Amino acid sequence: MTDVKPQGIYLDNNATTRVDPRVVEAMLPFFTEQFGNPSSIHSFGADVGKTVRWARDQVKTLLGAEHDSEIVFTSGGTESDNAAILSALKTQKARDEIITSAVEHPAVLALCEYLAKHEGYTLHVIPVDSLGRLDVNAYDKALSEKTAIVSFMWANNESGTIFPIPKLAAMAKKVGALFHTDAVQIVGKMPLNLAATEVDFLSLSGHKLHGPKGIGALYVRRGTRFRPIIRGGHQERDRRAGTENVTGIVGLGKACELAMEYMEHENTAVKALRDKLEQGILAKVSHCFVTGDPSDRLPNTCNIAFEYIEGEAILLFLNRLGIAASSGSACTSGSLEPSHVMRAMNVPFTAAHGATRFSLSRETTTEEIDAVIDAVPAIIEKLRALSPFWDKDTPKAEAFDPAYA
Amino acid sequence: MTDVKPQGIYLDNNATTRVDPRVVEAMLPFFTEQFGNPSSIHSFGADVGKTVRWARDQVKTLLGAEHDSEIVFTSGGTESDNAAILSALKTQKARDEIITSAVEHPAVLALCEYLAKHEGYTLHVIPVDSLGRLDVNAYDKALSEKTAIVSFMWANNESGTIFPIPKLAAMAKKVGALFHTDAVQIVGKMPLNLAATEVDFLSLSGHKLHGPKGIGALYVRRGTRFRPIIRGGHQERDRRAGTENVTGIVGLGKACELAMEYMEHENTAVKALRDKLEQGILAKVSHCFVTGDPSDRLPNTCNIAFEYIEGEAILLFLNRLGIAASSGSACTSGSLEPSHVMRAMNVPFTAAHGATRFSLSRETTTEEIDAVIDAVPAIIEKLRALSPFWDKDTPKAEAFDPAYA
Ligand SMILES: Cc1ncc(COP(=O)(O)O)c(C=O)c1O
Ligand SMILES: Cc1ncc(COP(=O)(O)O)c(C=O)c1O
Repeated sequence: MTDVKPQGIYLDNNATTRVDPRVVEAMLPFFTEQFGNPSSIHSFGADVGKTVRWARDQVKTLLGAEHDSEIVFTSGGTESDNAAILSALKTQKARDEIITSAVEHPAVLALCEYLAKHEGYTLHVIPVDSLGRLDVNAYDKALSEKTAIVSFMWANNESGTIFPIPKLAAMAKKVGALFHTDAVQIVGKMPLNLAATEVDFLSLSGHKLHGPKGIGALYVRRGTRFRPIIRGGHQERDRRAGTENVTGIVGLGKACELAMEYMEHENTAVKALRDKLEQGILAKVSHCFVTGDPSDRLPNTCNIAFEYIEGEAILLFLNRLGIAASSGSACTSGSLEPSHVMRAMNVPFTAAHGATRFSLSRETTTEEIDAVIDAVPAIIEKLRALSPFWDKDTPKAEAFDPAYA
Repeated sequence: MTDVKPQGIYLDNNATTRVDPRVVEAMLPFFTEQFGNPSSIHSFGADVGKTVRWARDQVKTLLGAEHDSEIVFTSGGTESDNAAILSALKTQKARDEIITSAVEHPAVLALCEYLAKHEGYTLHVIPVDSLGRLDVNAYDKALSEKTAIVSFMWANNESGTIFPIPKLAAMAKKVGALFHTDAVQIVGKMPLNLAATEVDFLSLSGHKLHGPKGIGALYVRRGTRFRPIIRGGHQERDRRAGTENVTGIVGLGKACELAMEYMEHENTAVKALRDKLEQGILAKVSHCFVTGDPSDRLPNTCNIAFEYIEGEAILLFLNRLGIAASSGSACTSGSLEPSHVMRAMNVPFTAAHGATRFSLSRETTTEEIDAVIDAVPAIIEKLRALSPFWDKDTPKAEAFDPAYA
């Protein structure tokens, strides 16, 4: 395969990543050559089962899990999130409370809100502070013998803030609740050691780590009871029916293998580029600040709130220069409201609207970051000149919004 | 892409098909070039949305549906089956009965049995006759104002028998029930005109028509209320959350486009090869018969029951010669019981064990069929020589099993 990179600067890797050409290469034979089902007894499926086992082992190793049998392949992060939460509710009929946070992805939050509204569950939505850190006291108070499932993301897709999952999981286990973490954004970016935690369920998604779309996995700790959301054949040890998505599984396996190879690079070189981007923009643009927890944040994520302008306008101007970034999550783009994450963090309205996420990857280059640092100040200046709210003497948001710390 | 065909004769196309190289070709740019999410506003996702719309239109056209918005992309046939049945139960709380047939795929049957056993629904399993034809009288008697959902497959994966879906759907609508059809095996093999039926939901799966694994679709008739099984973002008009499996969707679209091109070929050339295979084997092997409805059967499917031998043994001998066939469905292989389909058809035990399915595709050649016709008689003779039950003077199964018509 010749590796044709598209034109432009792609800084929207928290939305989705470019599939690594080596991942595509690994998948190709399974479309047209070894295309049999892994369960078939004839030769067209002969090596398929072996390769699926190899892929499962890669996922296990990247997560730091103990057993291959703890990995269930799904169609993506959203299905994994739904499967974990719904299973926990079915296996613990005596408990009817759900705990989650205000900054979860809709794959968790929309489901929990639906369950509260239509299925009679009590939902506790734990707030975060202005850096996106979980209110652990509020969580502790919400926990009880009635808690069926706790679901907290490991890292936030917008701010990059990391929650202390091992500690939060241990708290849940003390009251006998099951614990799920949506780790879609952290898997492949930070080293994990799942075996050393008390996490019961973990969700991940292939396309966030240079793997294909349409494949994900759910970690289910050995011994945790499980009820599937999709029933039929006996695939995935009766935990997820349907013909295995072999090419997706192989692609995810290869993506996990590569993620381990690049883990160090992600936390040194990518992080350095991210820091350079932040410092470069902050040095040149007034009235903006970085959102998220500076002391515990994904190495690739930079979310800058530019006051008094619309994020969507920034994105359109960036796009004209071939630079791809994002405001809020891809799922909520198109709406004019600031994202629920920025609102939960109490980012002042005037700044939340201008929150712009630059998310890097191992494919990001120094030249690209330099180009973005060059481009952003002029765009902000142009947009502010057009903004009826802007005045260079306007006080910073902190001054008129006491909610902002 | 160079088209490397694997060695061997592949006659297991009802289990899964070889992805057409033109399908892979269509998918490739969406892994590494246009890899953005269709909802992103930047250029990396720019053409993606357009291509997804094109793919949806191909699926719609192949089905003979009226509106693109009736097509929901899913992860495969099993998910589509589950989504349709579970949605129907949620939107019709006042009704608590389910009707299905004894020969459904586990994706329908296992789910319905679970719902009956654990969720309090009443399940009517309608029998079939020895040709696999539905007992329409029994169906008519089971229908009532309590029926929430009827789910009948359009064509059977083992016998190829086709159910009269337009008529069965009309009967369901008369009592106000919703109607789902698992059309996984017929889509791409026979022309459909869904708009002219009263079907509410239809399931299909990409990998059964030379498309990729891990993608499928659910048709939901306009006006039919729908409750998703996977919640989160607003993808697929709020009917199936999760980042779109763009490459899978494009692959399914291309597979549908090609299926329309080959539809005539499937029903003339492929059918002729299938008939040749059947007649060739029946002419040379005693004590065997074709299962399924001779007057209404998939053009590519040939299921022959060889008396007094084990299907698994036949498959192993065939495999040594590089010929891939199947006994029962891929999901139940490995078990020593005859398939639930053969049992429901009352195929005598001595023959049901030896039921062997040869399923052809547009890639099957005359030379391949000739080779299989040459190979099978010797295999059967060898196995019968080893069988303690075999005696060339043993009466045919009909003689000692009155249930067999
Ligand atoms: C934190 C988080 N959770 C879940 C998801 C959903 O994953 P997917 O879209 O692959 O289903 C995403 C991304 O879309 C995410 O960022
Ligand atoms: C009739 C029928 N329904 C449903 C399915 C399930 O489809 P999938 O395995 O793609 O989920 C299959 C094949 O496995 C089938 O033959």
